[in-house]
Amino acid sequence: MQGVCLLGATGSIGQSTLNIIEQHPDKFFLACASANESVDKMADICRRFLPKRIVMGSQEARDRVATLCDGLPISFEWGSEALDSIAEDAQVDQVMAAIMGFAGLKPTLAGIRAKKRILLANKEALVTAGQLFMDEVAKHGVTLLPIDSEHNAIFQSLPQDEHGAHKRDFSKIVLTASGGPFRSWSLEAMKEVTLAQACAHPKWSMGQKISIDSASLMNKGLELIEACWLFNVTPNEVDVVVHPESIIHSMVSYRDGSVIAQMGNPDMRVPIAYGMTWPNRVATSVEPLDFVKVASLHFEAPDLERFPNLQLAAEAWYLGGTAMAVLNAANEVAVDAFVKGRIRFLDISTVNRAVLHSTDIQSVDSLDIVFAADKVARVMTKQYIAERNWL
Amino acid sequence: MQGVCLLGATGSIGQSTLNIIEQHPDKFFLACASANESVDKMADICRRFLPKRIVMGSQEARDRVATLCDGLPISFEWGSEALDSIAEDAQVDQVMAAIMGFAGLKPTLAGIRAKKRILLANKEALVTAGQLFMDEVAKHGVTLLPIDSEHNAIFQSLPQDEHGAHKRDFSKIVLTASGGPFRSWSLEAMKEVTLAQACAHPKWSMGQKISIDSASLMNKGLELIEACWLFNVTPNEVDVVVHPESIIHSMVSYRDGSVIAQMGNPDMRVPIAYGMTWPNRVATSVEPLDFVKVASLHFEAPDLERFPNLQLAAEAWYLGGTAMAVLNAANEVAVDAFVKGRIRFLDISTVNRAVLHSTDIQSVDSLDIVFAADKVARVMTKQYIAERNWL
Repeated sequence: MQGVCLLGATGSIGQSTLNIIEQHPDKFFLACASANESVDKMADICRRFLPKRIVMGSQEARDRVATLCDGLPISFEWGSEALDSIAEDAQVDQVMAAIMGFAGLKPTLAGIRAKKRILLANKEALVTAGQLFMDEVAKHGVTLLPIDSEHNAIFQSLPQDEHGAHKRDFSKIVLTASGGPFRSWSLEAMKEVTLAQACAHPKWSMGQKISIDSASLMNKGLELIEACWLFNVTPNEVDVVVHPESIIHSMVSYRDGSVIAQMGNPDMRVPIAYGMTWPNRVATSVEPLDFVKVASLHFEAPDLERFPNLQLAAEAWYLGGTAMAVLNAANEVAVDAFVKGRIRFLDISTVNRAVLHSTDIQSVDSLDIVFAADKVARVMTKQYIAERNWL
Repeated sequence: MQGVCLLGATGSIGQSTLNIIEQHPDKFFLACASANESVDKMADICRRFLPKRIVMGSQEARDRVATLCDGLPISFEWGSEALDSIAEDAQVDQVMAAIMGFAGLKPTLAGIRAKKRILLANKEALVTAGQLFMDEVAKHGVTLLPIDSEHNAIFQSLPQDEHGAHKRDFSKIVLTASGGPFRSWSLEAMKEVTLAQACAHPKWSMGQKISIDSASLMNKGLELIEACWLFNVTPNEVDVVVHPESIIHSMVSYRDGSVIAQMGNPDMRVPIAYGMTWPNRVATSVEPLDFVKVASLHFEAPDLERFPNLQLAAEAWYLGGTAMAVLNAANEVAVDAFVKGRIRFLDISTVNRAVLHSTDIQSVDSLDIVFAADKVARVMTKQYIAERNWL
């Protein structure tokens, strides 16, 4: 029986993780869980899974969950220290790091230091603090399983030993991208993109921010950076290939001419269950892939002229240090400005490039440096946007 | 340094194997080699690779090679006992079983008994004597690497340990088929197929027999039987999917919803080098797959009405015993009759079905039973064809 600490239990990854736990009560139990403010959802989780400890984002949220779950033998806690503490709990074997943003970094690191298996669904850890993060993983000898469908596919396509995937005999990673809703739009048409159009992802139903990042290919750029950290490669060892059907989740190309690919219907329960059960697998209730129904798969090169964010991500990786945190912060601010109608869709990458190339890059010796770089970049980006006339 | 015994050195698989040996002189040397009657080619191999021993199919061929290679420190031998003996030679670490037909069976079994790594490119071993063959493999604990591109792809897509591939957590094998030249022909049009049309395989340039078997999908049927023996499954655990581009060489579907696939440009050096170097890989000079150039992959269900051979192969597997040897023999005779213009293309499966279903099936307790079943089936098939008016 594996005890799971679910950081971010009420989000989409959290819910899918709970579904896998529920399907396999002989293999997993929910030891600890966290949420920010979703009181009702967390109360429901408490009743269904009876975790030992739960952590909420505020005292008020904690109190409300405790009241709703009165009488249940659960420790109701709140705040950042409690969050670190559940990731280290003795009953926990694996930590699902599904808290988005910087808030997810610290408890994930706590889980690493406590030598738990880490299931990584948080993007910021690798994008902004990749070196620090991977150094901690290596230092504590923990097993790190990426939960992003692309990185999970790469992991599945690499040779493996008891420690995880490794890149023996590999020549290139092939990172697939759906291409987003503007894949076949002209540059001219893309100048007039509306918010609704940018959020209409053709394959996955996701939040606003990640939908826009998918539409601008910034999401793929951030995944490129993550792949570089996870699999110890440089951007020139990663080919991004647009594959609109999103059936092949990514691939690894080997020096003998073989390509190994992982495919499947798009359902996050597949990478989640794989991470939880690796090196074994369990049933997930995900519909098996029917190739006759799939009928065809297509591939094309990404257009860097229309999607410059992809190139910017590679540039940030080569710049190193805080450059990736700067790009990530600039992009968050730029996307927010687009959502609020202050800049146009194509301006997002213009802003990102300007901020990336006008910021001093520092080496990342601590999380504090990352946090500081993030803050400075946000201020700079807001200023850069405010000073210009975009519409 | 691995010593290779190359059974069938002058054929297409043999030549590709020599190419890999030549590219990696630090890893492999040709210890022994055999050919049937190709004297000039074998003399050339002797000069280039200086094997310790070579075996020809006849004394005359042996003498001619010896004369052409006068002065070289090579033992020139001939005949079936010598063939078994080189597969057992102390300098040999791996045996490439690339002699086609029954002639390849005995020396391959000799290699198994001598505990060599077996690289299996011979189809008859598994199709006609699968149980016997796999029992010997298990008994002697040897590593068996399939060299057929489909089975090699399945092997690559399965989890592996030091003994080879195993089917842990797997749900189905997806065996891909190009569909052959008549994939999109109507049944009506297929009645008038000419020999030249049947031999014009859209993707691979191959011999006449295997081209016709590919066109009739009997080749895929035989591969289905091979897959069942190699991976310890039944035909209902193997989905045959038509994939005209032949880029995905086959796949494995897992119970979590993941599908792992092996792809590549069609070049036999990939599976050969994989077999020789497993669990590692080496460079092969095979052009890497360019997905942008590939552009699209297609899938469709095989049409069992137009290609009944596929169904017959599954039936033969379930009949068990000598049924597979009978089907294989009937098909060889039927294809020969088609080549000679005595029956039409669609008659091949009619003949196969009639012979399969009118022959007594015996259990396979020895190779002699297989050989006898083969002989009887050939006689019966010739008779069945001769007694009827086909044109």
